[in-house]
Amino acid sequence: MSNSPIVLAFSGGLDTSFCVPWLSEKHQRPVVTLTVNTGGISSEDAAELEQRALALGARRHLLVEARPQFFDQVIRHLIAGNVRRGQSYPLCVGAERGIQARFLARAASELGSDTVAHGCTAAGNDQFRFEMAMRALAPEITVLAPVRDESLQRKTQLEYLRQRNAPEIPAGGDYSINRGLWGATIGGRETLTSADSIPESAWVLSAGALEKPLAEEQHELEFKAGVPARWDGRRLPPVELIEAVEAAGARFGIGRGIHLGDTILGAKGRVAYEAPAAEVLLTAHRELEKLTLGAAQLRVKDTLAAVYGDLVHEGKQLDPVCRNIEAFFDSSQQFVSGRVHLTLRPGSVWIKGVESDHSLLAATRGVYGESAGEWTPRDALGAARVLSLPGLLHSRVAASAKKGGGHA
Amino acid sequence: MSNSPIVLAFSGGLDTSFCVPWLSEKHQRPVVTLTVNTGGISSEDAAELEQRALALGARRHLLVEARPQFFDQVIRHLIAGNVRRGQSYPLCVGAERGIQARFLARAASELGSDTVAHGCTAAGNDQFRFEMAMRALAPEITVLAPVRDESLQRKTQLEYLRQRNAPEIPAGGDYSINRGLWGATIGGRETLTSADSIPESAWVLSAGALEKPLAEEQHELEFKAGVPARWDGRRLPPVELIEAVEAAGARFGIGRGIHLGDTILGAKGRVAYEAPAAEVLLTAHRELEKLTLGAAQLRVKDTLAAVYGDLVHEGKQLDPVCRNIEAFFDSSQQFVSGRVHLTLRPGSVWIKGVESDHSLLAATRGVYGESAGEWTPRDALGAARVLSLPGLLHSRVAASAKKGGGHA
Amino acid sequence: MSNSPIVLAFSGGLDTSFCVPWLSEKHQRPVVTLTVNTGGISSEDAAELEQRALALGARRHLLVEARPQFFDQVIRHLIAGNVRRGQSYPLCVGAERGIQARFLARAASELGSDTVAHGCTAAGNDQFRFEMAMRALAPEITVLAPVRDESLQRKTQLEYLRQRNAPEIPAGGDYSINRGLWGATIGGRETLTSADSIPESAWVLSAGALEKPLAEEQHELEFKAGVPARWDGRRLPPVELIEAVEAAGARFGIGRGIHLGDTILGAKGRVAYEAPAAEVLLTAHRELEKLTLGAAQLRVKDTLAAVYGDLVHEGKQLDPVCRNIEAFFDSSQQFVSGRVHLTLRPGSVWIKGVESDHSLLAATRGVYGESAGEWTPRDALGAARVLSLPGLLHSRVAASAKKGGGHA
Amino acid sequence: MSNSPIVLAFSGGLDTSFCVPWLSEKHQRPVVTLTVNTGGISSEDAAELEQRALALGARRHLLVEARPQFFDQVIRHLIAGNVRRGQSYPLCVGAERGIQARFLARAASELGSDTVAHGCTAAGNDQFRFEMAMRALAPEITVLAPVRDESLQRKTQLEYLRQRNAPEIPAGGDYSINRGLWGATIGGRETLTSADSIPESAWVLSAGALEKPLAEEQHELEFKAGVPARWDGRRLPPVELIEAVEAAGARFGIGRGIHLGDTILGAKGRVAYEAPAAEVLLTAHRELEKLTLGAAQLRVKDTLAAVYGDLVHEGKQLDPVCRNIEAFFDSSQQFVSGRVHLTLRPGSVWIKGVESDHSLLAATRGVYGESAGEWTPRDALGAARVLSLPGLLHSRVAASAKKGGGHA
Repeated sequence: MSNSPIVLAFSGGLDTSFCVPWLSEKHQRPVVTLTVNTGGISSEDAAELEQRALALGARRHLLVEARPQFFDQVIRHLIAGNVRRGQSYPLCVGAERGIQARFLARAASELGSDTVAHGCTAAGNDQFRFEMAMRALAPEITVLAPVRDESLQRKTQLEYLRQRNAPEIPAGGDYSINRGLWGATIGGRETLTSADSIPESAWVLSAGALEKPLAEEQHELEFKAGVPARWDGRRLPPVELIEAVEAAGARFGIGRGIHLGDTILGAKGRVAYEAPAAEVLLTAHRELEKLTLGAAQLRVKDTLAAVYGDLVHEGKQLDPVCRNIEAFFDSSQQFVSGRVHLTLRPGSVWIKGVESDHSLLAATRGVYGESAGEWTPRDALGAARVLSLPGLLHSRVAASAKKGGGHA
Repeated sequence: MSNSPIVLAFSGGLDTSFCVPWLSEKHQRPVVTLTVNTGGISSEDAAELEQRALALGARRHLLVEARPQFFDQVIRHLIAGNVRRGQSYPLCVGAERGIQARFLARAASELGSDTVAHGCTAAGNDQFRFEMAMRALAPEITVLAPVRDESLQRKTQLEYLRQRNAPEIPAGGDYSINRGLWGATIGGRETLTSADSIPESAWVLSAGALEKPLAEEQHELEFKAGVPARWDGRRLPPVELIEAVEAAGARFGIGRGIHLGDTILGAKGRVAYEAPAAEVLLTAHRELEKLTLGAAQLRVKDTLAAVYGDLVHEGKQLDPVCRNIEAFFDSSQQFVSGRVHLTLRPGSVWIKGVESDHSLLAATRGVYGESAGEWTPRDALGAARVLSLPGLLHSRVAASAKKGGGHA
Repeated sequence: MSNSPIVLAFSGGLDTSFCVPWLSEKHQRPVVTLTVNTGGISSEDAAELEQRALALGARRHLLVEARPQFFDQVIRHLIAGNVRRGQSYPLCVGAERGIQARFLARAASELGSDTVAHGCTAAGNDQFRFEMAMRALAPEITVLAPVRDESLQRKTQLEYLRQRNAPEIPAGGDYSINRGLWGATIGGRETLTSADSIPESAWVLSAGALEKPLAEEQHELEFKAGVPARWDGRRLPPVELIEAVEAAGARFGIGRGIHLGDTILGAKGRVAYEAPAAEVLLTAHRELEKLTLGAAQLRVKDTLAAVYGDLVHEGKQLDPVCRNIEAFFDSSQQFVSGRVHLTLRPGSVWIKGVESDHSLLAATRGVYGESAGEWTPRDALGAARVLSLPGLLHSRVAASAKKGGGHA
Repeated sequence: MSNSPIVLAFSGGLDTSFCVPWLSEKHQRPVVTLTVNTGGISSEDAAELEQRALALGARRHLLVEARPQFFDQVIRHLIAGNVRRGQSYPLCVGAERGIQARFLARAASELGSDTVAHGCTAAGNDQFRFEMAMRALAPEITVLAPVRDESLQRKTQLEYLRQRNAPEIPAGGDYSINRGLWGATIGGRETLTSADSIPESAWVLSAGALEKPLAEEQHELEFKAGVPARWDGRRLPPVELIEAVEAAGARFGIGRGIHLGDTILGAKGRVAYEAPAAEVLLTAHRELEKLTLGAAQLRVKDTLAAVYGDLVHEGKQLDPVCRNIEAFFDSSQQFVSGRVHLTLRPGSVWIKGVESDHSLLAATRGVYGESAGEWTPRDALGAARVLSLPGLLHSRVAASAKKGGGHA
């Protein structure tokens, strides 16, 4: 048995807190906790996480900054593809598991460890995302998942920690929360069934926003080749821009939803989410694309985006087809540059307008609804006649079939 | 030359009003006006339309009720498919052109006429929808389109009518409006370019709704096999139900949007729309499907719905593939029955929850996020290992390629 | 522990033969063997199977005829969809596992048994197909899979049988063969790697066919609404027709291939196959569809067929989406009636021509390549101009971008 | 009116021969003929074409070599996508029209001309391909199409030429032939209807091949990153390699077919084709991909290839979505390197085997059909249980619905 440390992916929630003493005792090996910051961790949060990890018995605590990688390797493509599941859920969380696994594998390698651990349960998606990434990236590393493998219930874990005088878990009350650069998810009593929403107070980023609605605000978002580049005229690196948009949108309760979807296990699951930045950025980007991409590009990109969203959701980001789809996305974004004028309102974002040097609307000399430009009325009539042919031929066959004969 | 009447599809707007005297004079034939009610025409509107048609010189005016057919043949399928273009526009208008063409052809046949006419311009989509439907349904009938074929501008038409002392056109001010059971579209100065929205006062169904926001309201929508059946507990025929939902939603300004899309001509076009009923019904139906359809059904249905939406938008509803897709839709809706709890808010609709006797969430004995049911932790681990295989094999090949060799 | 019999799916090959004594001894329960005939079992084969099962210690042997169900529930849809994997493999085997599982569950129920067994290994697809079908159809029944669960190698099994003086296995020499109504698969030394084919002598249906090539033959196949109805003018029930076509095609070595594909496990697998009937029927049906279906129907049906083929291959025939896709297929076959003229040649089938009362080619009054009919040259020019618009607008934007400016 | 020359795309067939004197006389302008060699033109052919053009009255004849561009810009992508229409037709001809239009526009520009001409009819696809490419590439240039616009029949043209003592047209007897690097098409009496094939003597590349069948031959094709690189061990530039494969395959009558398809006009059309090189290269490339690409890559690439094939067929190669799809294709071909062992037989090509340093079959340590490697039997059982869940949940809902109740 190795005596190298077990490297534990650590979020500070109940499951991963429980794992620190349990792994130390059970495996008689030191535990190093690793928090991969893919968003939503302030410097106070970071200090508190370290303190808690050490108090729980971790030999050492590591924090790595991964927001830029999360943007470059994941969010950028989710924006390019306007990726949502079920026409609404923007993959707030889950997409970062691959990034976290990558840093976990790297930390294990640097620490000379052959074992990593995570706190996922047997019922969720994250166990798959972690293990699939780990096995593809570092198949030689053993992955432990005590909460899943021992079927440990919440109550048992709390009791175990209490017996060891562990620091209390700031559990977010009765809700299980997941927080990252692209949004937050909130699970609780109401999301175990389908009939009801979580209460206004349970929202993490926007609690109360709809109780005292703000007056609407005007903003402007600028994209360069599909990448968000300026917010209200200020050039910002993508991570900071996303955080600024989140702050603005959350005050309006924008981007809330409840996702009722299909888990990797094949069962249904339900979870509340808040994604103010994703809502604003995806809506704005989509509109800019409508101005600058052709009909065929939009159609084919949508098809690929649905596939891509499923792959990311299901932890298959390391499948080479994702690289191929990203090559398509990159190629499609060349002209997706311009400014989107937004109105933020309580509960929703409104696209006021959009402008681009590459506007296909402006490129149409004919003015829609008024008069034709590049084509004459006679051309339009000819096109109508040609477009009628398939329907006409079918009607002829159907009419002939009705009469009981053929036309041959 | 025939002396049978020309049957003119008549909406009462400028273009079709102009056509009445113009066709009479130019072709020296009587004109019969036909208004096909696919929604949005009150009995006062109907009386006014008749009066105006006759004042313009129509020999006779006909009104046919087509809302039930519009629901059965079109809207029902748009709901089953959750059809939207560009992730937002619910095909408010345009989808009814096929229905209108059908009644136009029937009226021509009943009146012994060999000629119909419409008022579409050369720049829009409706010319295609009308002519494609007419040619498939009644290829022997001649279709006239004076506004398109003579390239007649708004100004010229107004002048022509003024000279004949025609009754004034209640033009909706400076905006061109299209109204039906599934919503309204509004075109005007702002929609000719992309930078701006129409003003609050230009909305047809909900003007002012966002200036004095109402307090939120709770409603319940019930579906039976994919068809909306009850609103707040009251069983209503689909047409009445849609009208009730529209009335409720419009007060909140729900379902507004500006559609920037691709016309049948291949150019870009932009138009504002209001679709409170479509927004509420599609959002609610979609959520009920997430509870009652499997992942593969949702995925495949989405793919077909995108195709179907394009076909309907482009006037290809008579293509036999539409019947095949509708057979898929019908088959998929068997278990889409249940109640959706809705909150109407200024500018948006919120799905509070959804319930069904056919809930796949309830069928999962395992409770998501907490503990597994039908599978054990060991099963989940096995599944994770198997799901890792494609990524693992690819990583092995890629690593070997990096080293410059193969592994064979 | 129950003392009811274990019902074993029995093919007479090594794995299922081994299971008979092993299950009896290990579980101390009687074993009833069940052979589900989904094709390829003559009455001599059937008698021999019964004899062998009893000699191996089965308490009782059952044979059920399932070819008509296999056609109705599976093959009919594979024909309607022209289903092939990887542009070639017609799902010769594997598709019948769902049918077999259904009869296995029924036999268990009739015999009052709570346990069934199969002989699948841990490496193949069939374990998944069996277990997925069994769990959906009869989740209360226990499924045993000794060869997989005990990781029993071929050698161990042979030794085990030898010690019990079991009758010898007519193993098909060194090749593992799978045979049904829709074709046969053959696995062996060569198919474990990718560089080579199996030898001419190893083919099951057509060994030697390409060594002494026959002179070509003319045949005619008639379909009614997508279902094969007559072969050379003789009306035959589908099962007999398929067997007649197989006999004719096999003499020419038609329908051979080697399938290199993706297993349900996520790894690659390779297997030789012979599918003379599938090759002839799919090729002919496809051609008849080209004559009688519109472009959009063909396109959309292809998309669905790829999905359907994957679902069937992966044992997901009980997923409700398969019923929805079949509804599409059924709807699409209404006019797929007519006669296909075929030439059988050594190694391939040639479509000489195809005729139908519902021919869309005949419905086109314009004669292709010669002169136009339903449209004028001016119409074609108009259509060309309209179809040029997207490319033209894009070129304009791209040219303007090159110059470093916009055109707005 | 300009007096600059009219630049005529010239193939030497009846239609373009007719255009030379007709354009000169009608427009009173010099005609310069341009033949763009996209394959199938020997140096004798070239000399003869020049002679004929001048004899017909052309001021000057130009020949440009465009095979390398045709490969780089078109065929390379058709191979990467394994593009076929209707599961068979490899887009033999038509795909080169865009290339030809590009050179036509360039010649016009170099000659200071504002007018080009082509000989297409009103019934075919090529008029669209030419005009769509011309308008996107050089919208300022006028395009003349006398044969289409004057509805000139074959007989009229022949009579016109006879009156001018024009050199005779070597018409290929009664068949209209189109020949390029990727194959040939042959239209004639039989292809105007659907019941019959063209006679053995009418084949252009392989007439008689099936009457005296050759003994089978072994060959080897090597690809590097998806591009054909060696034939029988000899490194060849792509154009020469394709011509070598065509010569080898044509002797066996490989790659013959009759394409019954949908024209851009929306009607059905039928044409015989010979594509020995395309048949061999696509079949071999596809098999190499099955060894080196993952399941998701193959699936998604197939979907895109169907779209891409339609776009190319319909003359939409300049649509920017084609560039995006090509980016996907390029990205996917990284590991598509290796050797394919082929057997050429009368009428068909057989893939004996395939080898690659990037083999995913070799990367699977588990040996298919025999024993598992990367996973244990317990893992496979776990995966089977998880994969069963959707079907199980659906069965539960369906059973409960049958009993008339829900399970909530």
